[in-house]
Amino acid sequence: MSTVGILGGGQLARMLALEGAPLGVRFLVMDAVADACAGQFAPMVVGDYTNQTALAEFASRIDVATFDFENVPAASARWLTERVAVYPNPRALGTAQDRLAEKTLFRELGIPVPPFATIDNRAQLDAAIAEAGTPCILKTRRLGYDGKGQFRIRSSADADAAWDALGAQADKVGLILEGFVAFQRELSVVAVRGRDGEFRTWPLTENWHVDGVLSASLAPAVLPPALAETACAYARQLAQALDYVGVFALELFCRDGELLANELAPRVHNSGHWTIEGAETSQFQNHLRAVLGLPLGSTRMVGHACMLNWVGAMPDAAPVLAEPGGHWHDYGKEPREGRKVGHATLRAESVDALSTALERVGNALGREAQVAPVITRLQDATPV
Amino acid sequence: MSTVGILGGGQLARMLALEGAPLGVRFLVMDAVADACAGQFAPMVVGDYTNQTALAEFASRIDVATFDFENVPAASARWLTERVAVYPNPRALGTAQDRLAEKTLFRELGIPVPPFATIDNRAQLDAAIAEAGTPCILKTRRLGYDGKGQFRIRSSADADAAWDALGAQADKVGLILEGFVAFQRELSVVAVRGRDGEFRTWPLTENWHVDGVLSASLAPAVLPPALAETACAYARQLAQALDYVGVFALELFCRDGELLANELAPRVHNSGHWTIEGAETSQFQNHLRAVLGLPLGSTRMVGHACMLNWVGAMPDAAPVLAEPGGHWHDYGKEPREGRKVGHATLRAESVDALSTALERVGNALGREAQVAPVITRLQDATPV
Ligand SMILES: Nc1ncnc2c1ncn2[C@@H]1O[C@H](COP(=O)(O)OP(=O)(O)OP(=O)(O)O)[C@@H](O)[C@H]1O
Ligand SMILES: Nc1ncnc2c1ncn2[C@@H]1O[C@H](COP(=O)(O)OP(=O)(O)OP(=O)(O)O)[C@@H](O)[C@H]1O
Repeated sequence: MSTVGILGGGQLARMLALEGAPLGVRFLVMDAVADACAGQFAPMVVGDYTNQTALAEFASRIDVATFDFENVPAASARWLTERVAVYPNPRALGTAQDRLAEKTLFRELGIPVPPFATIDNRAQLDAAIAEAGTPCILKTRRLGYDGKGQFRIRSSADADAAWDALGAQADKVGLILEGFVAFQRELSVVAVRGRDGEFRTWPLTENWHVDGVLSASLAPAVLPPALAETACAYARQLAQALDYVGVFALELFCRDGELLANELAPRVHNSGHWTIEGAETSQFQNHLRAVLGLPLGSTRMVGHACMLNWVGAMPDAAPVLAEPGGHWHDYGKEPREGRKVGHATLRAESVDALSTALERVGNALGREAQVAPVITRLQDATPV
Repeated sequence: MSTVGILGGGQLARMLALEGAPLGVRFLVMDAVADACAGQFAPMVVGDYTNQTALAEFASRIDVATFDFENVPAASARWLTERVAVYPNPRALGTAQDRLAEKTLFRELGIPVPPFATIDNRAQLDAAIAEAGTPCILKTRRLGYDGKGQFRIRSSADADAAWDALGAQADKVGLILEGFVAFQRELSVVAVRGRDGEFRTWPLTENWHVDGVLSASLAPAVLPPALAETACAYARQLAQALDYVGVFALELFCRDGELLANELAPRVHNSGHWTIEGAETSQFQNHLRAVLGLPLGSTRMVGHACMLNWVGAMPDAAPVLAEPGGHWHDYGKEPREGRKVGHATLRAESVDALSTALERVGNALGREAQVAPVITRLQDATPV
């Protein structure tokens, strides 16, 4: 029986263990905090990702390693790779950890990206703002998540404030300036590639963010098929270029019918949580199949699905549980502001049924604003 | 966060924990053996169900108790009930533990049963065989499972052999003689009743046994709707009579269009494993919702489903994983003759697609005989 080691013990590790258990494998989770929520369902090694003793114990007890968290130091990932199989490979991980490296790769592969420039000092910032035009966004190259480490620049007068906020990061994690994309939609391709190179994508997902944090996902996205094909082709090119093994998400902006790549998440992704109920095989199970060298499962939809993220604290479960297609996912975390503590997925056989279910749930929970953009999209007959 | 205690740590407890985790609850499993397979995904108290110290520790760490295994001694169940909420209640458990008590209840409720008689001594056996006619079956009243503790009597000449095999059990667990039912089909109703009395059934399941052990289940069963309604009505009556809370299965024989009750399993049931992928809400999740007093989930089918049991050892996973609707369930057990070590569920959108998938899997695994009766049923257009 193989043991899969997961670096990081958050909800992604937890769902990997729960969805992967039926494959007959065991799990070992490594996390810096002892009460990481995956630890409720899998044994843990508690230690920092740079802690050699903990890493050595972790490596000695597993057959293959993967990630719940992409910001594992490259040195630790390489160290592990010398001892056990690690998927995705450290190069893929390293590329996805760095907004500059990933955007450079996108461009090399002919995947359109917003204008971007690396920023090492204040002078470069001014030059880059002048070049990209406003609005634009200053971001840390590394370690950003959920919209953290970003500063929006509306006019060149904001350059001072942006530098005050993030300038100190230039030497630590690097900075990048990106042109602001006035997108109509945010989309993601959740894809999986096997050890043998087999590649599959789930139907395209549309995503809505609130304060930089994912709020809702709808699958399949209401889109012209040609656009979805392009998005999947981009994901395939990336997977091949990186010799990627496992699940990843490619986040895209859609502006006036054109796709621009935002970022690559080298792991199972929040915008793929709907696959647990809404697809024949979930992203979690397929990630494990890929990592273990097993045949990949079908990524076809089973109905229409909408995922609603619960951030900060769990709402009342009853209205979702009472929905015919309502599925509840409480990650077993303590409530905390801005923390992703759970999600719900509504699955329905038709767009209309999904729309009505969303309306009922939104009303019952006082979350009309969270469901509104999804309902609007479902009722809007003309895609894009 | 509530903790659900599960008495028994086999595959049912394992699947309860895996399917119940998204509700945000924790689990504690009690089992006599430390390597019980549920222990791979839930903390355990190791101890016999009669071990007071272990039971006390178990009770002190949980909010509500339920069962993976119905043969927990009645005294232990009652002891627990004085300390924590226990579902199903000890009376329901006690009735289902005893073939005589359950058949007596069936008869009281007007649910047809095969002829049966309690057997305390050899003279009663002869009289009962004369009364019921042959063939008939001598069974232990308690502690039988997977066809164990049964002796088939083809003619009265077999009475000696039957008494040699099981007579010693008369004083220990009791004996019952049942008329043999020359059934065309075996069916089960998997049903759930909430704390508030809400009652739901999954679509009727047809089951095939080999050597007394479940081999395959098909849902929905191909049956006239009136028969399915009758079966569900029986289940509802039973649930009400026992003030049952949680999931149970009612096993039925179908002979010449008539239903005869065989037994009541007071827990999630092997013939309901297909609900993980084949129904909107699985039996495991709904059992926990019932036990926790949460709204019950929809029991509607999602496609057509066939479950194949793996007994003794796991076959090669690849042919099932490669099926578009193939789902694998390895319980993480050591192989052992006669042991249920896992199952597969094939889900498809049509009867034809399911039939073809079964044929491919049967051929690839050399298990033509296991899938054959299911394929025959699917291809047979005229239900009973
Ligand atoms: N160049 C851009 N133009 C317009 N909006 C942007 C741009 N970059 C980021 N955003 C907005 O901010 C959100 C978060 O940005 P991004 O994905 O870069 O950050 P992150 O911290 O890595 O987020 P996540 O953890 O969700 O992946 C995006 O989903 C989008 O809504
Ligand atoms: N009275 C009967 N007439 C005909 N067949 C019977 C009868 N009783 C039992 N059988 C056959 O034996 C199988 C197992 O019997 P039964 O369900 O009583 O035993 P069990 O040990 O409790 O099984 P399980 O663990 O599957 O519930 C039945 O599914 C059926 O195939």
